[in-house]
Amino acid sequence: MKIGFLGLGNMGGPMALNLLKAGHQLTVFDLSKSALETLAAAGATTAPSIGALAVSDVELVITMLPAAQHVKSVYLGEGGLLANIAAGIPLIDSSTIDPMSAREVAQAAANNGNRMIDAPVSGGTGGAAAGTLTFMVGGEKADFDAALPILQGMGKNIVHCGPSGNGQVVKVANNMLLAITMIGTAEAMNLGASLGMDPKVLAGIINTSSGRCWSSDTYNPYPGVMEGVPASREYSGGFGSDLMLKDLGLATEAAKQARQPVILGALAQQLYQTFSGQGKGNLDFSAIIQLYNGDLK
Amino acid sequence: MKIGFLGLGNMGGPMALNLLKAGHQLTVFDLSKSALETLAAAGATTAPSIGALAVSDVELVITMLPAAQHVKSVYLGEGGLLANIAAGIPLIDSSTIDPMSAREVAQAAANNGNRMIDAPVSGGTGGAAAGTLTFMVGGEKADFDAALPILQGMGKNIVHCGPSGNGQVVKVANNMLLAITMIGTAEAMNLGASLGMDPKVLAGIINTSSGRCWSSDTYNPYPGVMEGVPASREYSGGFGSDLMLKDLGLATEAAKQARQPVILGALAQQLYQTFSGQGKGNLDFSAIIQLYNGDLK
Amino acid sequence: MKIGFLGLGNMGGPMALNLLKAGHQLTVFDLSKSALETLAAAGATTAPSIGALAVSDVELVITMLPAAQHVKSVYLGEGGLLANIAAGIPLIDSSTIDPMSAREVAQAAANNGNRMIDAPVSGGTGGAAAGTLTFMVGGEKADFDAALPILQGMGKNIVHCGPSGNGQVVKVANNMLLAITMIGTAEAMNLGASLGMDPKVLAGIINTSSGRCWSSDTYNPYPGVMEGVPASREYSGGFGSDLMLKDLGLATEAAKQARQPVILGALAQQLYQTFSGQGKGNLDFSAIIQLYNGDLK
Amino acid sequence: MKIGFLGLGNMGGPMALNLLKAGHQLTVFDLSKSALETLAAAGATTAPSIGALAVSDVELVITMLPAAQHVKSVYLGEGGLLANIAAGIPLIDSSTIDPMSAREVAQAAANNGNRMIDAPVSGGTGGAAAGTLTFMVGGEKADFDAALPILQGMGKNIVHCGPSGNGQVVKVANNMLLAITMIGTAEAMNLGASLGMDPKVLAGIINTSSGRCWSSDTYNPYPGVMEGVPASREYSGGFGSDLMLKDLGLATEAAKQARQPVILGALAQQLYQTFSGQGKGNLDFSAIIQLYNGDLK
Repeated sequence: MKIGFLGLGNMGGPMALNLLKAGHQLTVFDLSKSALETLAAAGATTAPSIGALAVSDVELVITMLPAAQHVKSVYLGEGGLLANIAAGIPLIDSSTIDPMSAREVAQAAANNGNRMIDAPVSGGTGGAAAGTLTFMVGGEKADFDAALPILQGMGKNIVHCGPSGNGQVVKVANNMLLAITMIGTAEAMNLGASLGMDPKVLAGIINTSSGRCWSSDTYNPYPGVMEGVPASREYSGGFGSDLMLKDLGLATEAAKQARQPVILGALAQQLYQTFSGQGKGNLDFSAIIQLYNGDLK
Repeated sequence: MKIGFLGLGNMGGPMALNLLKAGHQLTVFDLSKSALETLAAAGATTAPSIGALAVSDVELVITMLPAAQHVKSVYLGEGGLLANIAAGIPLIDSSTIDPMSAREVAQAAANNGNRMIDAPVSGGTGGAAAGTLTFMVGGEKADFDAALPILQGMGKNIVHCGPSGNGQVVKVANNMLLAITMIGTAEAMNLGASLGMDPKVLAGIINTSSGRCWSSDTYNPYPGVMEGVPASREYSGGFGSDLMLKDLGLATEAAKQARQPVILGALAQQLYQTFSGQGKGNLDFSAIIQLYNGDLK
Repeated sequence: MKIGFLGLGNMGGPMALNLLKAGHQLTVFDLSKSALETLAAAGATTAPSIGALAVSDVELVITMLPAAQHVKSVYLGEGGLLANIAAGIPLIDSSTIDPMSAREVAQAAANNGNRMIDAPVSGGTGGAAAGTLTFMVGGEKADFDAALPILQGMGKNIVHCGPSGNGQVVKVANNMLLAITMIGTAEAMNLGASLGMDPKVLAGIINTSSGRCWSSDTYNPYPGVMEGVPASREYSGGFGSDLMLKDLGLATEAAKQARQPVILGALAQQLYQTFSGQGKGNLDFSAIIQLYNGDLK
Repeated sequence: MKIGFLGLGNMGGPMALNLLKAGHQLTVFDLSKSALETLAAAGATTAPSIGALAVSDVELVITMLPAAQHVKSVYLGEGGLLANIAAGIPLIDSSTIDPMSAREVAQAAANNGNRMIDAPVSGGTGGAAAGTLTFMVGGEKADFDAALPILQGMGKNIVHCGPSGNGQVVKVANNMLLAITMIGTAEAMNLGASLGMDPKVLAGIINTSSGRCWSSDTYNPYPGVMEGVPASREYSGGFGSDLMLKDLGLATEAAKQARQPVILGALAQQLYQTFSGQGKGNLDFSAIIQLYNGDLK
C-alpha cells in the first residue's frame, strides 16, 4: 500500500521503518533532514512539504506528532493536509493528544471527505522499534477494521475503543491510573520498608492481596525487588518521567474540559512536576519513589 | 487445646466459634453479656474478668479488639493480661493497630516471659464466619510455626511477614495502597465515562494494560461493569468505607512515627473522611466513586 | 476619545456604560443583539462586525471576552481586529486569560504595529457597575501611562505589573493564593468549631495571629462570624465558585507551561471542581466550606 | 508566689527564668542536670523528683513538655503530679498537645480537686527569652483570670479561648492555617516569578489584594522580598520546619478524632514531612519554598 507518513521522531521513525519492512511503499515528511535521510536510505520516498505529500499518490496518511498544537497545524493549517489532500483518503493520527482536540480535527477531516481515526500508542521507543506497540483506536468500526492490517505492521495489540477520540480517552485514563498506582506503590513500599519490612517480602504479599497492581507486580519501583525493571538499573530506560508528566497534563486538561474532578490525578501531575524540577525528568517514571526516599539504590 | 479468647465482637465472635468447631476448648471474655451467652451456648466457658481468664488453665490467649487503646489496656492495664498470666503462655493479638503499639505490647509481653505475635486479618465478617480469613503475622518464625495450626482453624491464608509488628505493617501498607488504587480507579473510570467511553469497554482495556489493579479488575467501583461486586448492588456488603477510613488513620499514624511521607495516602484518608461526613461511611469502600459522580447507579 | 469596545457581557456591558458616562464616544460590538441595544440606548454606536469596528474611526480598542480562544479568534482570526485595524491604534484586552496567550496576542499586535496591554480586572460585576474595578496591567510603562485615564473611567485601583502578560500573571497568582487561603480558612474554622470553639472567638484570635488572611479577616466563610459577607446571606452574591474554578484552571495551565509545581493550587482547583459537580458552582466561592460541613447555616 | 515548674527545655528554661525575674519563688524539676543547674544559679530551688516537687510548698504548678505522652506521664503516672499534689493547687500546662489529651488530663486533675488550664504558647524561643509569648488559654474564665498575672510574667498577649482544651484548639487551627498560607504564598510567588514577575512587585500587589496573608505581608518566603525575615538570611532562625511539622501532626490527629476533613492541612503535613526528609527540617518553616524552586537564594 502507498502510505504517507508525517513525523519521524523517536517514535515515528521506527514505526515508519516497520511499515517499510512490512512491504508498504512510503512517502515521508519531517522537518529534520537526518530523519528524512534515514528513511530514504531504507527505501522511502521523501516529500519536500506537507502539501507535496498530500498531493502525491498516497492511499493513506499516518501522522505521529509531539502535541495537539502540531496536529492542528499539520492537519488544519494553510498548506496542511486537509487543504491539499483528496477526499476519500483515510487518515490515522497516532499522536497522543487531548480527546477534544482529536475530535475537533477528526470532524474537520470528515467535513473534508476524509475518514480519520485516532490511534495513540503505548509501548515506548522499544515497542516502536520491535513493532510491538499497543494501539488504542477511536473512530468508526469500519475504519478501524480497514486500518487494522496496517497497524499490525507496527504493533501487536490493536484495540477498538469506540467513536472518534476514544483512543485518546483510553490512553489518558489508563496512564493517569498508572501514575496513581505507581506513586501509591512507591508510598506503600517505602512505608513498609521504613517500618522494618523486607521490601521483597512486602511486595510478595501485596501482589497476592488487594493492593496488587501492575506497578507493584510487574514494574515494582523499589530497588532490588524485581529483576529486569528500571528500578534494578538505576531507573534508566523505560517510560520517562517527563513523558508521564505530559500524559498527566493531558488527563487533567481533558478532565477540566469534561468538568470532572481528578483529585489524585492532579496531585500525581504536581508530584511529577516537582520531580522533574529536581532534574530527574529523564529517569523512568518509577523513579518517582526517590521523592520519598532520596536516592536509595 | 485450651484457648483463652478476649473480644467477641463482629470479628472475634465468629472467629471464636470456628475455634470451637475445630475442637478446641475455649475460655472467653467480653464486656457484652450477649456475646458471652452466644459463645457459652456453643460450648465455651465464660470468664468473669480478664484476670480470671488469665489465671485459668488456658495454654494460649488470643485477643481481637477494636483499637490500640483497648489492646494496651487489656494487656498492660492493672488487672490486665500481663499482670496476671503465667510466664510461658503464648499470646496472639489479631486486632488491627499501629505497628509501634504492637511492638510496644509485644516487648512488654516478652519482658513478662510471654512470646507474642501480631496477627491482624483481612477478609471481613464474611471471612471470619466462613473461616477463610487471611492472617498477616509478625513475630519470631518459631512462634509463627507454633501458632499456624490454631490460625488455620480461623483462616486459609496465613503469611509470616517478619519480626514483631510486621503483620500490622503489611496490613496498613496493603490497605493504604488499596485505598489509593480504588480512588484512582474511580477517577479514571469517571474521567473516561464523562468523555464518552463505555465503562465496560474502558475497564476491559485497562485490565489488560498498565493501569490494571485489583480495584479495577476484581472489585470495579463503576456500577454495571462487574457482577457480584458491591458496585452492582448499590454498594451494600463488602468492606465499609469507615473501616477503610480507620485503616488509613493507622497508615498515616504509622507514617508519622516513621517520619515517612505518604502524600496520596494522606489525601485518600481525607477523601474517605469527607465521604464519611456525607453520611456514607457504612457503604462499601468502592462507593467513594460517588464523591466524583454523585449517586450514579 | 473615540473608543471601540468588543464584548458587552456581564462585565463588559457595565464597563462600556461607564466609559460613556465618562464622556467618551463608543463604537461597540457583541454577538448579542440585546447587549448592543442596551449600549445603543445609552448613546453608543453599534458596529455590524469586528472588522467594521476595526476600520471605523476609533482611536483605541478595548476587549472584554470570556476565554483565550475568544481573544485569539477576535484578534487573530480572519476578519478579526489585527487583519483590519490601522497600525498605531492602541489595544487593551481586559479579558482574564493565561499569560502565554496574552503574550502571543500582544506580540502579534506589535508585529502589526499596534501597542497592546493586558489589563484583567478584579472586583466582579458589582465593581464593573460601580466603576471601582482593580486593573492589573501588563505592558510597556508608556502604554500603561497612556491608558491610565481611560481605565480610571472604569476602575479605581490601576496597577502596573510589568511587561506584557504580567497583568494576567498577577491575577492568576493572586487568585490562586486566594483560593488556597479560603479553603485553608474553611478547614481551620471547621476544625476549631468541631472541637468546641466558638467560631467568632476563633476568627477573632486568628485575625490577630499568624494565620491571619483576607479570607479570614475580611471575607470569613463561616456563617455568622461576619456581617455583610456572602457567608451571612447563604453565599449569594460575591465571586462565584465557578469563576474561581475558571481562574484556577488558568493558574494550573500557566504553571504547566512554566513547568512550575503548584501542589495546593492544583488541589484547590479539584476541590472547586468537586463542589461545582455538586451543583453549587453559582454560590459565592466562600461556600466551599460546605464541602467540609454540609449545609451549615 | 511559690511556683513549681516542670520542664526546663528550650522554651521552659527561659520561661522559668522570666518568672524568677518577675519576683516569684520557683521550685523546678527536669531530667537534665544542666538545665536544673542553670535555674539553680538563677535562684530557683531544685526538686529531686516530680513527686517531691508536688509535695513541696508550691502554690501553683506550671508544666512545659514536648508531647502528649510526656504530659500524660507527668500528670497521670505513678509518682506523677496528681498522685502526689494536694487538692486545690491550680495547674497550668503550657505544652502544645492535642486537645483531646489536654481535656483528658484536665478532667483527671478536676477529679483530683485541682483546677487546670491549658495554655500553649506561640512566639518561639525568642519570645520565651524576651517574655513576649502569646498564650492561648483553655479553661474556666475564673481560672484564666487567676492565672493572668502569672502568665503576664512570661508573655504579652494572653487570650482566653473558651473551656478546657480550647487553647490547644486555637493553636492547632491557627498553625494549620499558617502552614497552608505559607505553602500557598510559596506557590504563588514562584508561579509569578517563573512567569516573569518581579517578586517584590508581585508581593506588593498581593499584599493590597485578596491574596493578602501574614505569610505574604509579614513573613514573605521569597528571598529578597522583605528585610528581617528568615528568607533574607537563608532561612536561619524563626520557627523551624520540624516544629511546624509537629503542629501539623497535632492538627490532623485532632481532626481525625473530630472526624473532620482537613484536606489542605493533611497535604501541608505531608509536604513538610517530605521537606524534612530532604534534611531541611531545621530551616525556618518559610523555607518550604525550596520544595518549589530548589535552593534559590
